[in-house]
Amino acid sequence: MIVVTCLAPVNIAVIKYWGKRDEQLILPINDSISATLSTDQMNAKTTVMISPNFEKDLLFFFREESCMSPRVQVCLKEIRKRASENLKGKKNNQGIDLWKAHICSENNFPTAAGLASSSAGYACLVTALAKAYNVEGDCSSIARLGSGSACRSVFGGFVRWHKGNQGDGSDSIATQIVPASHWPSIRILILVVNDARKKVGSTSGMQRSVETSQLLQHRASHVVPQRTEQILKAIKNHDFETFAEITMKDSNQLHSVCLDTYPPAVYMNDVSHTIVEFVHSYNKIKGTTKLAYTFDAGPNACLFLQEEDVAEVVATIKQVFPPTNENNYIRGIKVPEKILDKDLVLPSGPQEVGRLRYIIHTKIGEGPSEINDPEAHLLDQTGLPKQKTD
Amino acid sequence: MIVVTCLAPVNIAVIKYWGKRDEQLILPINDSISATLSTDQMNAKTTVMISPNFEKDLLFFFREESCMSPRVQVCLKEIRKRASENLKGKKNNQGIDLWKAHICSENNFPTAAGLASSSAGYACLVTALAKAYNVEGDCSSIARLGSGSACRSVFGGFVRWHKGNQGDGSDSIATQIVPASHWPSIRILILVVNDARKKVGSTSGMQRSVETSQLLQHRASHVVPQRTEQILKAIKNHDFETFAEITMKDSNQLHSVCLDTYPPAVYMNDVSHTIVEFVHSYNKIKGTTKLAYTFDAGPNACLFLQEEDVAEVVATIKQVFPPTNENNYIRGIKVPEKILDKDLVLPSGPQEVGRLRYIIHTKIGEGPSEINDPEAHLLDQTGLPKQKTD
Repeated sequence: MIVVTCLAPVNIAVIKYWGKRDEQLILPINDSISATLSTDQMNAKTTVMISPNFEKDLLFFFREESCMSPRVQVCLKEIRKRASENLKGKKNNQGIDLWKAHICSENNFPTAAGLASSSAGYACLVTALAKAYNVEGDCSSIARLGSGSACRSVFGGFVRWHKGNQGDGSDSIATQIVPASHWPSIRILILVVNDARKKVGSTSGMQRSVETSQLLQHRASHVVPQRTEQILKAIKNHDFETFAEITMKDSNQLHSVCLDTYPPAVYMNDVSHTIVEFVHSYNKIKGTTKLAYTFDAGPNACLFLQEEDVAEVVATIKQVFPPTNENNYIRGIKVPEKILDKDLVLPSGPQEVGRLRYIIHTKIGEGPSEINDPEAHLLDQTGLPKQKTD
Repeated sequence: MIVVTCLAPVNIAVIKYWGKRDEQLILPINDSISATLSTDQMNAKTTVMISPNFEKDLLFFFREESCMSPRVQVCLKEIRKRASENLKGKKNNQGIDLWKAHICSENNFPTAAGLASSSAGYACLVTALAKAYNVEGDCSSIARLGSGSACRSVFGGFVRWHKGNQGDGSDSIATQIVPASHWPSIRILILVVNDARKKVGSTSGMQRSVETSQLLQHRASHVVPQRTEQILKAIKNHDFETFAEITMKDSNQLHSVCLDTYPPAVYMNDVSHTIVEFVHSYNKIKGTTKLAYTFDAGPNACLFLQEEDVAEVVATIKQVFPPTNENNYIRGIKVPEKILDKDLVLPSGPQEVGRLRYIIHTKIGEGPSEINDPEAHLLDQTGLPKQKTD
């Protein structure tokens, strides 16, 4: 019996992935670039236990038995295939590639918040499976088969997902651009927005964009390659202003393409757009690009900024987006209190309370890691979920 | 002394104008197509009085003296130039091209509602000036100098504004595609949305799009020419479904390009997007495209539909967008009462009251016209605004 527990991070794209050229293999129409967030604030946790005694594969999600989705099955199959290749001709071959697996997974943040939980989840699953089945080498292409953007959560720091050119997807992998230590001053604020509108799933939205948008292909072939080179350079040179501007422009273009989709896929709401206005106003007042926003397939904003600006920015956000209840409004890395300068004149507009649910303060972090503490396992000795105690 | 009073219509673009290649001459980067709305419901009204005794040009807006904007001056200058060319070498040349003008203009709908008031206003101004100074021939290029889309309000029915190719703008004119009588079953519902967010002006938004959007040029050169040909054919063939689909797609693409602008120009709000969802749901339930939306540089929707569907659509809208006050909620052409079929299951969602201010029901109409009744003049014998009595 082998048991492995791993943590894996969320990643936030700054050059967006939108549109597949192969639905089955999850091959994208353009490269994308992301920042991996620290697992100290947000993570997925997965325990994989494999045993010759298990009768079948079982999946538990938040400690409840859950059906094995086709995507999870694809990842398992691919890991077993690699394990089997590894074992060929080896002595002491116990045939572990045939052992069944019990998998238990959860996130420490609400799945419903639309915070890229599937990317952390599949990166964690694949990392834990690879360790359990003793598979080495690139795992990003296996994570990609679970959920495209999950391949970027396999590394820390800044990561590039190469679209690749091969039909079988073998070169559609993620690579690390720079480790988290390269740019330690970067901070991230996640603004979780209250939202009532019904959602368009990102998978179906993306598919509809490929089928109907007359702008998507132009973006993928003419805009993204240029932006990718520019932002790579900005990341390498710690050029925050260029990094921030490209990040904002690429977020805008993702949502632009979604609106050009038929029927349109609308992810940002009035609060999201108010955040965009706030960021541009703040940068204008400061006379330089201090703050960047990016939005994925939901209304929540992810802001990039530098450590030295966090206290002022958070104080400003609290003023423009007052909470219903101060308690637990700012989560994650502690933010120093700051009294705003009187001459920081903010854009007026309705100071309605409760437009944001809460804010998470985090930073760039490392890729998936194994937890060696047996207490951390989500499964007990029999392969069933432990009772939740916390 | 010569006095002329004219009415001119609003027009609603179905292939959108967005982006100038020449800011001064107002030359667009693509052709656009619009429907001219009946002046029975919405119109601009302008009285022009010219006299050898007037000392200077004066402009009154809603009967209040207003400063002569550069755009009004450009129109006046162009009309006088043509008048002077006309008069050259003629007998009885009184030199009326040198007479000063008093101009009084108003709309019968709120300017603030963002309902293309400037297009009706400049079309009316130019028509009245042309009649007063006895100028004949195409006036659309003069109206264009006032406000680009005003050139399309110079004709009734469906109208095409040709972008033209000449540097001096001489071929950037409007022409009628078909008169209003060609497709009499078309009806229009204008949904005036409650909005609190601050606005980006359409002139500055458009300019910013030209400067920053990486998708706008592709739209103008690759998407619009194709759509223009398709919608021209649909209009000529009374093909409502094709007309409706292209109209919706082109509205979406306008707002898509606005979002790809940096900083983004956002005109639609959550209520606008709820209207979009409503239209797609309604069409889905009906199994055919009964309803089309289009949005300009503001949150208000303009819906196209056929006369036979008006009663049901209005009853449905009243249910999904209940008014704060039933009184005066539906304006314009009378809508028959209709009790909704029980099996018309509408998309759920918040049935919040007051999201729409009111609805105007109108149809396709004729171009500008002169009113021969002296009572209709907005200026008295001395050239000053009459007191408002209604």
